[in-house]
Amino acid sequence: MRPLFVLIKCEMGRAYETAREAVDRIPEVSEIYSISGQYDLLGKFYLEPGDDPGLFVTEKVQGLPGVKDTFTLITFNAFAGGGARGGDR
Amino acid sequence: MRPLFVLIKCEMGRAYETAREAVDRIPEVSEIYSISGQYDLLGKFYLEPGDDPGLFVTEKVQGLPGVKDTFTLITFNAFAGGGARGGDR
Amino acid sequence: MRPLFVLIKCEMGRAYETAREAVDRIPEVSEIYSISGQYDLLGKFYLEPGDDPGLFVTEKVQGLPGVKDTFTLITFNAFAGGGARGGDR
Amino acid sequence: MRPLFVLIKCEMGRAYETAREAVDRIPEVSEIYSISGQYDLLGKFYLEPGDDPGLFVTEKVQGLPGVKDTFTLITFNAFAGGGARGGDR
Amino acid sequence: MRPLFVLIKCEMGRAYETAREAVDRIPEVSEIYSISGQYDLLGKFYLEPGDDPGLFVTEKVQGLPGVKDTFTLITFNAFAGGGARGGDR
Amino acid sequence: MRPLFVLIKCEMGRAYETAREAVDRIPEVSEIYSISGQYDLLGKFYLEPGDDPGLFVTEKVQGLPGVKDTFTLITFNAFAGGGARGGDR
Amino acid sequence: MRPLFVLIKCEMGRAYETAREAVDRIPEVSEIYSISGQYDLLGKFYLEPGDDPGLFVTEKVQGLPGVKDTFTLITFNAFAGGGARGGDR
Amino acid sequence: MRPLFVLIKCEMGRAYETAREAVDRIPEVSEIYSISGQYDLLGKFYLEPGDDPGLFVTEKVQGLPGVKDTFTLITFNAFAGGGARGGDR
Amino acid sequence: MRPLFVLIKCEMGRAYETAREAVDRIPEVSEIYSISGQYDLLGKFYLEPGDDPGLFVTEKVQGLPGVKDTFTLITFNAFAGGGARGGDR
Amino acid sequence: MRPLFVLIKCEMGRAYETAREAVDRIPEVSEIYSISGQYDLLGKFYLEPGDDPGLFVTEKVQGLPGVKDTFTLITFNAFAGGGARGGDR
Repeated sequence: MRPLFVLIKCEMGRAYETAREAVDRIPEVSEIYSISGQYDLLGKFYLEPGDDPGLFVTEKVQGLPGVKDTFTLITFNAFAGGGARGGDR
Repeated sequence: MRPLFVLIKCEMGRAYETAREAVDRIPEVSEIYSISGQYDLLGKFYLEPGDDPGLFVTEKVQGLPGVKDTFTLITFNAFAGGGARGGDR
Repeated sequence: MRPLFVLIKCEMGRAYETAREAVDRIPEVSEIYSISGQYDLLGKFYLEPGDDPGLFVTEKVQGLPGVKDTFTLITFNAFAGGGARGGDR
Repeated sequence: MRPLFVLIKCEMGRAYETAREAVDRIPEVSEIYSISGQYDLLGKFYLEPGDDPGLFVTEKVQGLPGVKDTFTLITFNAFAGGGARGGDR
Repeated sequence: MRPLFVLIKCEMGRAYETAREAVDRIPEVSEIYSISGQYDLLGKFYLEPGDDPGLFVTEKVQGLPGVKDTFTLITFNAFAGGGARGGDR
Repeated sequence: MRPLFVLIKCEMGRAYETAREAVDRIPEVSEIYSISGQYDLLGKFYLEPGDDPGLFVTEKVQGLPGVKDTFTLITFNAFAGGGARGGDR
Repeated sequence: MRPLFVLIKCEMGRAYETAREAVDRIPEVSEIYSISGQYDLLGKFYLEPGDDPGLFVTEKVQGLPGVKDTFTLITFNAFAGGGARGGDR
Repeated sequence: MRPLFVLIKCEMGRAYETAREAVDRIPEVSEIYSISGQYDLLGKFYLEPGDDPGLFVTEKVQGLPGVKDTFTLITFNAFAGGGARGGDR
Repeated sequence: MRPLFVLIKCEMGRAYETAREAVDRIPEVSEIYSISGQYDLLGKFYLEPGDDPGLFVTEKVQGLPGVKDTFTLITFNAFAGGGARGGDR
Repeated sequence: MRPLFVLIKCEMGRAYETAREAVDRIPEVSEIYSISGQYDLLGKFYLEPGDDPGLFVTEKVQGLPGVKDTFTLITFNAFAGGGARGGDR
C-alpha cells in the first residue's frame, strides 16, 4: 500500500484538536504531524487499493472539525531508504 | 526520532535520477516519494537528535544532481495512528 | 465539438456532492473527475458550437451547490492521440 | 483505465511543436489540447494500471522538446456524464 | 480618447448579471466581455479626458451588483493595427 | 468576429519595440496598448472564425522579439455598450 | 523627515471615502493617491522622527473606514531628483 | 502634474547604483527611495501631460543598469494633505 | 535554547493590542516586533527543549486576540555574530 | 538600537557558506539563523542609528557569496518579553 499525504490548514488555534480527532476517527491514519510553514498538519494515510483518495479526503479529512483547506499529494513511487537509517520507526 | 520532510523541485526530466541518487547517497533517507503537484519529490529523512536539519538539507539534499529548489517541513509532533491501519509499512 | 475544461474549488467536504449534482443536472457533462492539487474537480463539458462558455460556466457550473471558485480552460486545438492507446475510453 | 492530466508550460513559441511531438512519440496520449491561461497545453494520457505516473511524466512528458514546467493532476474518480451529450467524442 | 480596461471578479453565478447591469447603467461602457481565466469580465470604457479613472472604477464599476474584486489596467499608448484587419468592429 | 486579448510581458526595455513589430507584422492586430501593472502590453486581435487562437499566440505573438511571457484571455460574449459613448473609436 | 508609504486595499466602492477620511483625520498625510493595480490607494505620510510607523499604520491608517488590508513600504534613503523637474510640487 | 510611481526590482547588490544613475540620467525624477519589501526602489517621477508613461518606463527606467523588473503605479487623483504636516518637504 | 520565530498577521487595527497581550500572557516571549511588509508582527520566543513548537504556536500564539494567520520559522542553527556589534542588546 | 531582520534565499547548497561569510565579514551581525520554509537564512543585524538599512542590505548582505534574493523586515517597535524567559540569551 502506498501512503497518501494531505497538507491541512486549520482555523486559528484548532490544529491540535483536528489532529487528535483525525487519529481517533480515521482508521486510515498512519501518522499526523504538526508542521512548520503555511499549513498546520501533514497527514499520512494508508488507503486500500480500491479506495478513492478524493472521496476519502473530501469526506473523512475535510469533515474533521477546524479544517479550513487541504492540499492532496499523491505518491506515485516510493524509493525505499537503503541506508543505515532507511525505513520508518 | 522525528522525521524531517523536504519537498524537492527538480530540473525537467531528472526527478527519478535525483530520487535514486538520494537513496544511494544519503543514509538518513527513510523514503523518497515521487508526488503530484508543484514539487516532484517528497523526501522523508530521520536525523539524529543532534543533527542540524538546515545543514543536512543544504549540503546533502540540495547537493543532489538535478535539484532546483527545496522547501523544508519540520515536524513538531507526531500523532500516531491508533486505528486499524495505523503506523507505517 | 471541442471540450471545455473547468477547474472547480468546492467548500470543505462537498466536492463529491457537487460532482454528483453536476452529472445529474448538466447534460453537457462529459466527465467530472475528482483530482489532486489545489482544485477539487476537473469538469469536461461539450457545448454546442453556438453556446456561450461564459454563460454556461456562470449559470450552470457556478450554480451547483458547494462551488466556491472556478477557473475556465478553453481548448483551442486538440492533437488527437495517434499512438496505441490514443483516444478516449 | 483512468486518465492522467498534465498541465504543460512551454518555452515561448514552441507549444505546438511540443504537442505534435507528444502525439508522435507517446502512445499513452489520448489528447493534447492547446489551452488558454497560464499553461500552454493540457495533456490527457491513459496509463496501464501498473504504470508509474511520476516516472511517465518525468521521462516522457518532461522529455519533450520545449517543455519548461509541468503540473500533474491525478484523477481519483470519474463521474461519467449521464446527460444527452455525456461521454467523449 | 484612450480606453480604460478593468478586470472584474464576480460572486459565483452573477457575472452575466453584472455585465448586463454595467451596459445598462454605465454610459462609458464600450464593451464588456465575459472571459476565460481567473477574472470573469473584461470591461472596456471610454472616459472623458478630465474624468478620474479611480473615482470611476470605485463608484461606477465596483458599485455594480455582484462585483467581488477589480484590477484596473491603464492604457498608455495605443499602437493602432495597420494590417488588413486593423481597427475595431 | 470576437476579439482575442493577450497580456504580454516583455524583456526589460523592449515593450515598445515589441508593440511596433506586432503592428507591422501581424495583420490580425486591432490594437496594442502599453499598460500599467505586471504585464507590459495588452494586445487585441481579430481572428477569422476558423483560426486557432493557440497557434496564433504561439507562433505570431510569442514569435515577436522581446516577448518573455503571454497570458491569453478568450472572450466568450461581448455586451456592447448601449450608453452615450458605447462602441469603439 | 523621510516619508512613509502605505499601499491600501479598500472594500469595494469605498476607496475615495477612505481617502477623504484620511486627509481629514490624519495630520501626517502628505498625499493620498488613488492608483491602478491590485491596491486602491498609495498614502504618503510624514512622521516625526520619534513616531512609531507600526503604531501609526495600525491605529491611524487601518482605523480608517473601508480599509481591508495594508502593506507598509519603509523608505531608507531618498535620492533627490537633481534634474530639471526634480523635487515635488 | 501628477506623479508616476514605479516599483523597481534590481539585481543583487546594484540597487543604489541604479538609484544614483536614475537621479543623474533622468530629469523627470522627483525622488527615488530605497525601500523595504519585495522591491528595492520606489521611483517618483513627474511627466509632462503629453508624455507617454509606458514609453518613459520602458526606455528610461528599464534602461537603467541593474534593473530586473518594474511595476508601474499610475496615480489617478491626489488628495492633498490638509493637516499640519500636509504637503511634501 | 534556540529561538522560534513566528510571523503574525493581525486583524485591521489590532496588531499592537495583540503584541501587548503576547508580552503579558506568554512567558516564552523574548521580543515581539511590529514590522513592515505583509505580516504585522515578528515574535521571537524561547521554548524549553522539550516544548512542542506546534502546540505552542497553536494554543498560545494563535490564541491571542486579533490573530488572523501565522507562519512559523524554525531556526536550525544560529551563527553567532563575532563582529564588533555581535550578540543581542 | 533596533534590530533589522533580513530573509535570505541562497543558491542551492550554499546557505551555510553564506551564513559563515556573513558572520566573518559583517560586524553588524547579531545572529544568522538557518531556517525552515521558503527562505534559507534569517539574519538579525544591529545598525547604528544613522546607518541606511537599504545601503547595508544592498552592499553588505546582497554582496555575500551565494545570495539569490533578500526580503528586508524593518522593525518598528520592540515589545520586550516581561515573562520568565523574556529577553535574549
